[in-house]
Amino acid sequence: MSRNVHITVEYDGSAFRGWQAQPGSRTVQGVLEQALSRVCGEDIRLNGASRTDAGVHALGQSASFTGNFGIPAGRIPIAANDLLDDVRVTVADDAPEGFHARFDARGKTYLYRIAASREPDIFLRNYRYLLNESPDKGKMEEASARLVGTYDFAAFRTMGGAGQGDTVRTITEIGIEQHDATDTKGGPIRETDIRVSGDGFMYNMVRIIAGTLVEIGLGSRGLESVAAAIRSKERADAGHRAPAAGLYLETVYY
Amino acid sequence: MSRNVHITVEYDGSAFRGWQAQPGSRTVQGVLEQALSRVCGEDIRLNGASRTDAGVHALGQSASFTGNFGIPAGRIPIAANDLLDDVRVTVADDAPEGFHARFDARGKTYLYRIAASREPDIFLRNYRYLLNESPDKGKMEEASARLVGTYDFAAFRTMGGAGQGDTVRTITEIGIEQHDATDTKGGPIRETDIRVSGDGFMYNMVRIIAGTLVEIGLGSRGLESVAAAIRSKERADAGHRAPAAGLYLETVYY
Repeated sequence: MSRNVHITVEYDGSAFRGWQAQPGSRTVQGVLEQALSRVCGEDIRLNGASRTDAGVHALGQSASFTGNFGIPAGRIPIAANDLLDDVRVTVADDAPEGFHARFDARGKTYLYRIAASREPDIFLRNYRYLLNESPDKGKMEEASARLVGTYDFAAFRTMGGAGQGDTVRTITEIGIEQHDATDTKGGPIRETDIRVSGDGFMYNMVRIIAGTLVEIGLGSRGLESVAAAIRSKERADAGHRAPAAGLYLETVYY
Repeated sequence: MSRNVHITVEYDGSAFRGWQAQPGSRTVQGVLEQALSRVCGEDIRLNGASRTDAGVHALGQSASFTGNFGIPAGRIPIAANDLLDDVRVTVADDAPEGFHARFDARGKTYLYRIAASREPDIFLRNYRYLLNESPDKGKMEEASARLVGTYDFAAFRTMGGAGQGDTVRTITEIGIEQHDATDTKGGPIRETDIRVSGDGFMYNMVRIIAGTLVEIGLGSRGLESVAAAIRSKERADAGHRAPAAGLYLETVYY
């Protein structure tokens, strides 16, 4: 009888060409499939909930796979992590027949992390969007309130090769947190964490939302531009695409 | 007239095969020489104060170079950093004729960083020695007191290919700091910073001191073993060599 297993995965995206397996490139899916195939003793193909880009991190990516292997699900994390370095399987559970990590996802939360300091901290360059000045929390919150809801977010995505389809999405919540921290050399930094939750996200959507909020928080873009970009559906009317290094897939909801 | 320039450099050692230039390997010296040669318009050869190993970081490495270039020393950092990613020139000054970053160094401080948590934080794997349990500060301090002074540290170095020479060194200070912190997923970690200052260090000496202190702090090695290792001069009587990832060259003194 074929089994179906659901795993939760974290990874440091710095040394990966993104999630999706590609011949000749080191990808999270490729590295994980290799480890799981050894652990399960048969060829494993993963369905990932999100095809994260090169340099994007995950604290709680979800994936599922089927097969006829014998290893108890609970032993998969330890066995797989023994073969892994910058990826870790944190949870593995048997899932109902037909469960599919991507198609069954009901929503996701992404975390976008910013660090502002006078001098850039090179030790954070792969893990934060490094700015010289901290964006204003109040302005970012006002702008966030205008993004939460069900809208056509056509202006907030990069056109990919795949069909464009429906560009209406629901953003359920955007939370902004700021706190003081210390950089690697002991200097002061101001950190900003943006958490965006929604039912689904188009290509680069969270990074374009983060870039738009940063511009508004730094005062180089007006609050009213959010509604204008939603109305126009023109990519040029939204903000810049913030770097991959700051983005973390935090949770996938089922 | 030939000029002599003294620079201070920081780098994330994760993606380097160490400091020293080697054909076919990405090294800090190689990458820096390439950038400085472009900035200065002539071939630059660097003298580095310390030949840090693969994976070892620097917050304050020192290096010097000579040449007949025209660029003011104060403009070198900005011009070079424009060409650099995981290395940064933080200071550049004209130095007296004959100054040599390695031969003139009077002492150094290394920082060794440990993070203890129940689950390893993969985002810290290149930047800390990851332990499950936090070593005891008091025990490490007692052991440190027995290492400070002028001793034959032959037991605390890896035999290299180069001549063994004099193995007497002076450790002027070892400081231990501990504090609570938060890992990338928001979980609790306990950080330990060990700072070791001395007039000079042999190959792997700081990592073997850190490994010895960790074993003593975790209770798997007795305090009296420090004096015994100094007396015996046998590598086998000192502790393990702690990983490169936790080591930072912090300051070079002149």
